[in-house]
Amino acid sequence: MSNTPATAAVLVIGDEVLSGRTRDSNSGYIAQYLTNIGIDLKEVRVVADDEAAIVEAINALRARNTYLFTTGGIGPTHDDITADSVAKAFGVGIDHDPRAVAMLRERFPNAADLNEGRLRMARIPFGADLIANKVSKAPGFRLENVFVFAGVPSIMQAMLDEVGPTLAAGVKVLSESVRADAKEGDIATPLGAVQKAHPGVAIGSYPFVDEGGFNTNIVIRSRDPEALAAAKAAVEAMLAGLR
Amino acid sequence: MSNTPATAAVLVIGDEVLSGRTRDSNSGYIAQYLTNIGIDLKEVRVVADDEAAIVEAINALRARNTYLFTTGGIGPTHDDITADSVAKAFGVGIDHDPRAVAMLRERFPNAADLNEGRLRMARIPFGADLIANKVSKAPGFRLENVFVFAGVPSIMQAMLDEVGPTLAAGVKVLSESVRADAKEGDIATPLGAVQKAHPGVAIGSYPFVDEGGFNTNIVIRSRDPEALAAAKAAVEAMLAGLR
Repeated sequence: MSNTPATAAVLVIGDEVLSGRTRDSNSGYIAQYLTNIGIDLKEVRVVADDEAAIVEAINALRARNTYLFTTGGIGPTHDDITADSVAKAFGVGIDHDPRAVAMLRERFPNAADLNEGRLRMARIPFGADLIANKVSKAPGFRLENVFVFAGVPSIMQAMLDEVGPTLAAGVKVLSESVRADAKEGDIATPLGAVQKAHPGVAIGSYPFVDEGGFNTNIVIRSRDPEALAAAKAAVEAMLAGLR
Repeated sequence: MSNTPATAAVLVIGDEVLSGRTRDSNSGYIAQYLTNIGIDLKEVRVVADDEAAIVEAINALRARNTYLFTTGGIGPTHDDITADSVAKAFGVGIDHDPRAVAMLRERFPNAADLNEGRLRMARIPFGADLIANKVSKAPGFRLENVFVFAGVPSIMQAMLDEVGPTLAAGVKVLSESVRADAKEGDIATPLGAVQKAHPGVAIGSYPFVDEGGFNTNIVIRSRDPEALAAAKAAVEAMLAGLR
């Protein structure tokens, strides 16, 4: 484990999310997974099935993060352009990969089933490592620090499970949640003072509406359990002092 | 209505989404709203409560889209830094805005309730127009093509309703969905041929898993109802030919 936590970005590729037709659940899943292994997710982007947009996002996000995870666009149809976009972003070639063809042949032993469309799923940028997938056999791949996953949640999760153990896990960020039973505006100033007195933790304030009207969840996060406990106690003392 | 559709981006600001603790629902809501009024959502980004990240995303997204909508980070607490970040992105000053103070005074007639924290919600970048909000009274604001909304969904939705009629609505993108009852890999090549023959529509293919295993939804989208109907008929004929 390194002292500087690894960082990550997620790139969700898909018109259907931008049209509002489909709700993306993959980024939330990856977020929780990374939080659990101590990697800081810094950014999520959703872009359309548009090569220029995908290439630009890949290059921006891979340059500034330890890892980039993409989801979507690696299926057999004409609108699946992620693999070609990754090859373009890296400036490398792409072709049918014999290892990937062999994986597909395992699933489709009948030659007629391994048609032109399905063979598109074996198009892998040069230099990439394959990411096996037990659900559908069609692999994802890794090129340098970019992990290319499917968009179907069950397949994406299988691929993440496959590569998870290879990631540079760090010290997990611990969190405590305190329900304030107070409106955000009534605790803002004293809460800011608690944050100032506890610089080793991050204190977030999240308003929500319940049967009594506006209420607030206070979430305290830190990699240091003692700092976390001290800040939580300070938040609780602050809230008790208001009653 | 202009011939070139307006475009938009959404910037979700909030650590709690990146930690996986909270699922963002605002971007999906805005996506559907924009689709209904014929505005093309091009990108969604989620960034942390970090001024440099917010400023960079605001400037990138406002430059390349007709509109940018931000959600989150305009409450009364220390972690609410969106208004200051917008001011910084535009290079303008920021201070308590008398119009915003008056709105808050309406909700908090008792001077003791309009404390330092709540007054933070009246800090508005110079030159911005306020966006009223019937739920909590604390306003959002618009600066040039950037609309700054709250993160609480009910308040965000009220703000979007407020500004919706001022947006450059376009011709709505119509869509038809066809359940293929076939695996994506079995229809990929003929579906690609249908897309090629119908360049005026966008045909998307979305695999999903049902009780019979992998299945596919085909979604056809176009602003032209005749082109849409013709492409849908071609997709249905293609599927019938496979049976």
